[in-house]
Formats: sequence, C-alpha cells, structure tokens
Amino acid sequence: MKAYVYVSLKKSVLDPQGKTIQGALKKMGYKGLEDLRQGKYFELTLDGGLNRTEAEAEVARMAREVLTNPVIEEFRFSLEE
Amino acid sequence: MKAYVYVSLKKSVLDPQGKTIQGALKKMGYKGLEDLRQGKYFELTLDGGLNRTEAEAEVARMAREVLTNPVIEEFRFSLEE
Repeated sequence: MKAYVYVSLKKSVLDPQGKTIQGALKKMGYKGLEDLRQGKYFELTLDGGLNRTEAEAEVARMAREVLTNPVIEEFRFSLEE
Repeated sequence: MKAYVYVSLKKSVLDPQGKTIQGALKKMGYKGLEDLRQGKYFELTLDGGLNRTEAEAEVARMAREVLTNPVIEEFRFSLEE
C-alpha cells in the first residue's frame, strides 16, 4: 500500500521561499500566477502487515508526530492500494 | 484556479534524506513502513485570466522549466477550480 503525505505551511504563516519562487517566475515572464506556496511531500510504501484502517491510523500518527511541525504546518494524506 | 505540483526524485535516484527519515521512524517504533521518499510540493494560485487549457499548459511549463530539475526529478500536477 502507498501513502502520500502533503505538508504545507499554515495559511497564517509567511512563506518567503514561496514568495521568492513566485517573484522569479514572474520576472521570467510566466503568466497568470497570483500566489505560490511551497510544501513538502512524502511518499510512503507500507508493507502488507497492516489493513487499511491500521495503515490510516499509523500514517496519520507519523504525519502528526514526526513529519509535521504542528506549530506552523498542517498536513493531509491519502492512501492508495 | 488552484494548481498543485508534486515533484519527486526519479526512482533511479538515491534519496538519503528519505532514508534518514525512514530510519528515524523505524527506531521510534512506527510499524509497517517499508520505504519513504521525500519530495516537494507547490501550491499555485492562478488568476482568472487563463482558461483551463491555457492554465494547464502554463503550469506544465513552469513545472518543467523551473520547479523541477529534469536530470534527477519528475513531476505531476493537478488543477482544481
């Protein structure tokens, strides 16, 4: 089973890295960009020992306790067979 | 319109950062993890000036030419109204 965890900065947190990339893209002439924010992305491969419910709980726990800094970041994840 | 760009290392490229996170999670007692790879994630807000086809082309061009290093990385993206 595969799990995809997406970590992004909370809306209220400034993202200077994203702003820099946005400025660079604008200067380079790319059109239509209003805002850009950067986040992290984790691709987890789970072994067959967990069923879907267990896998969901375990991935949520990893994301919440280790992969995300809860002060400034939030996460969402999806599972795929 | 929102665009989400996911950048990950090609399968053939080693990911020491991912391996370190995986090792840490294993040591901390999390179960069922076989592999972990880290990537980047960009959340783009597009202004209303582009229709869907134009937006798709522009986002693909930004991802291909700026957000991704084509030697070691690959990307996928999705659009959302």
